[in-house]
Amino acid sequence: MKSAVDRTPFHNRWISRNLSKKLSGEVRLLKRFAKALGVYGSDTRVQGFSGYLCELLIVRYGSFEALVREAAGWEPGKVFIDVQNHHKGKLPDGLKKKFEGQPMVVIDPVDRNRNVAAAFSPANFARFILACESFMKKPSIGFFFPAPRKADLNKIRKTMLSRGSKFIMVKFQRPDVIDDVLWPQLRRTAKRLKDIMLEYDFLVLDWAVHSDFSGVGEPAKGLSSYIMLELGVWKLPRIRKVTGPPVFIRPRAAEFRKKYQKLGKVWVEDDRLVAEVKREWLDAVEKLRDSLSDPLKDLKAKGIASHVAESVARGFRLVEDDAILRSCSKDSNLALFMSEYLERSAV
Amino acid sequence: MKSAVDRTPFHNRWISRNLSKKLSGEVRLLKRFAKALGVYGSDTRVQGFSGYLCELLIVRYGSFEALVREAAGWEPGKVFIDVQNHHKGKLPDGLKKKFEGQPMVVIDPVDRNRNVAAAFSPANFARFILACESFMKKPSIGFFFPAPRKADLNKIRKTMLSRGSKFIMVKFQRPDVIDDVLWPQLRRTAKRLKDIMLEYDFLVLDWAVHSDFSGVGEPAKGLSSYIMLELGVWKLPRIRKVTGPPVFIRPRAAEFRKKYQKLGKVWVEDDRLVAEVKREWLDAVEKLRDSLSDPLKDLKAKGIASHVAESVARGFRLVEDDAILRSCSKDSNLALFMSEYLERSAV
Repeated sequence: MKSAVDRTPFHNRWISRNLSKKLSGEVRLLKRFAKALGVYGSDTRVQGFSGYLCELLIVRYGSFEALVREAAGWEPGKVFIDVQNHHKGKLPDGLKKKFEGQPMVVIDPVDRNRNVAAAFSPANFARFILACESFMKKPSIGFFFPAPRKADLNKIRKTMLSRGSKFIMVKFQRPDVIDDVLWPQLRRTAKRLKDIMLEYDFLVLDWAVHSDFSGVGEPAKGLSSYIMLELGVWKLPRIRKVTGPPVFIRPRAAEFRKKYQKLGKVWVEDDRLVAEVKREWLDAVEKLRDSLSDPLKDLKAKGIASHVAESVARGFRLVEDDAILRSCSKDSNLALFMSEYLERSAV
Repeated sequence: MKSAVDRTPFHNRWISRNLSKKLSGEVRLLKRFAKALGVYGSDTRVQGFSGYLCELLIVRYGSFEALVREAAGWEPGKVFIDVQNHHKGKLPDGLKKKFEGQPMVVIDPVDRNRNVAAAFSPANFARFILACESFMKKPSIGFFFPAPRKADLNKIRKTMLSRGSKFIMVKFQRPDVIDDVLWPQLRRTAKRLKDIMLEYDFLVLDWAVHSDFSGVGEPAKGLSSYIMLELGVWKLPRIRKVTGPPVFIRPRAAEFRKKYQKLGKVWVEDDRLVAEVKREWLDAVEKLRDSLSDPLKDLKAKGIASHVAESVARGFRLVEDDAILRSCSKDSNLALFMSEYLERSAV
C-alpha cells in the first residue's frame, strides 16, 4: 500500500490523461458547490470531498449536472464507482469488509484497494445528497456562493439568550497533536460528555467542538481546544424516582427492595415496585466539573479520548454563558465558531 | 342480580352459620392488619377489603396466619376462592370475562355471579401480598398498630423544600356526586393531567388526589376537591429538538422537511434529519392553566372526567408550593393528605 505522498504523482498523471479542459471547469463547479455546503476537505475536521474525489466523480459522470442528478438518488452503502473497472463491477469480500460503514465507495484508479471517499462522514454524505435534491428542484447561485458567514457579537448574544438554554464550554490546552488526530478525539469526547450528562438526567440539546489552529510543526503551547455542550435541563430536583419490576416477579422484586430500601423509600404503584431515592447531582456544571476532575487513568477509563484526557488532567476551565460571550469578544475564531453553531445551515 | 342492600341479610345469615366465635377473632386480626396497611375499605377511595371479604377469607383459610402464609405466594389473576364450590373449581367463560383485570376472584357464597374482591385495585393487591411476605419473615406488632399519622406542618414544609421539586394543586368545587363516583374521576383526571404535562416535556414525579368529604345527602357546596402534581422539571428552554427519519427514507424525509422547514431549522446529524423548533410552553404552570381553561366540551374531549370537567369549567385555582403550606395550616385534612403523600409507607 502506498502512502498519500507516494500516490500523488500517480494521481496527477491519471488525472492529466483523463480530465479534459472542459471537464476541469465542471470540477471547479463541484468544488465550489462542496465548499459552499461545508463539505470540501477530506481531513478529519471536515470529513468531506478531496479535490481528487471531485475530479474522479466528474470523470465518471461527465458533468456537474449529471453528477448532481445521480447523487440526488444515492443511498449510503449503495454507491460503487470504479472508473478503471478494477473490480469488474463487484467488490471482493475483503474490500467489502474494509469499506464497511463508509457511505460510498470510489475505487482509486491507481490503487484498486483504496476508497477515495473513505473520509466522507455519513452526515456529510446525507447533506450532499439533500443539497443535490434541492438543487435539482430549484437551482440557484446561492448553492455556489452562500451568504458569507460573519460573527456578529450582538447577534450571538441575542440568539444565545433567546434559546433559554445553558451553554458550557470545557476549555483546555490544545493537545500537542496534528489536526487529523485532534478532531476525532474532540468529537469522541464531546459525545461521551453528552452521554455522561444524560446518564444523570441533564438534557443535552447539542454539542460542538472547536480548537485554535496550529501551523504545521508549531507547538500547541498557548493554544486552546473547546468542547461545548448546550443544555436544556441543568438543575434537577433532589429526589429521583426509580421504576422497579412487577411485584410478582419474586426474585427481581426481592432484589429491588433489598437494594432500594437501603437508599430510600419503596412502594407499589399499579403492580410495580417504585423507589424514591436521593439524587446525587442536582447541578449539571458541578457534575461536569466532577467528571473531568478525575485522575488521568479514570478519565481514559470513562471514555475521554487519550490526548484530550492528558490535557484535561493537566487542567481545564468551564466557561459558561456570559463568559463565553466575553471570550468571543476577544477571540474572533471562537466567535465564528459560536456563530456557525447558532446559525447552522438548514437543508 | 341483587343490589348490595338486598344481599346484606343473606350475607349476614351465611356468615352467622359459617363463622365460629373463634374465627371471629381471626377476622378482627385481619381487619386490623388491612386497616394498618391502608387497604381496609371496598369503596372507590380505598379500593381494598370489605368486612365481608375478610370474613370469607378467614372461613376459607381457618386462621389469620394461614391466610397470610398463603397470600404471600399469591399472584394476580391466579387467586380463585369459591368457598361454596358453586363453580366446581372452574369459572365459566362468561364470568372469566366479567372478572378480567380483577387481581383476585372470591365467589360470593350467596351470589355465584359476583366477585366479592372486585373492588381490589392491583396496587392494593400487590401491597397486601408484600405485607404478607414481610410479616411471614418478621412478624411484629407494628403490622397491626402502625405509628399514628399526624400532620406536622413543620415537617411538611421541610420535606417539601428538601425535595427540590414543585407542587401544584388544582383546586375546584367538589362535584356534587357521591364518593364512589368522585374518586375514580379524580384519579382519572390526575393521570390525564400528568400525561398532558409529559407531552410538553414537563417531568411529573408523581400525583395524588384529595377531596373534602360530604355527609350522605349533604350538598357539596363550599367543599373543594384537589388534584396535586409534583413536578421535577417545570421550566424549559425555548427551543426543542425533533429527531426525524433517516435522510434516505425519501418520502418520510421529504415530509419531515416540509413540515419543519416552516417551523424552524432542519439539518442532518449522522444520517438523520433533525429539526429545531420553538417550544410553545416554557412554564408548566402556564401550560396547566391553559389546558384547564378550555370550555367544558374541550375539557371532556381531552380526557378530563365529566363531573370534574363540569366543576373545573365553572372555575378552578392553581395553588403552588408556599400557598399549599398556607392552605394546610388552615385545613387539617389537607395537611394530613400532604403528610401522607410525603411520608408514603415503604413496603
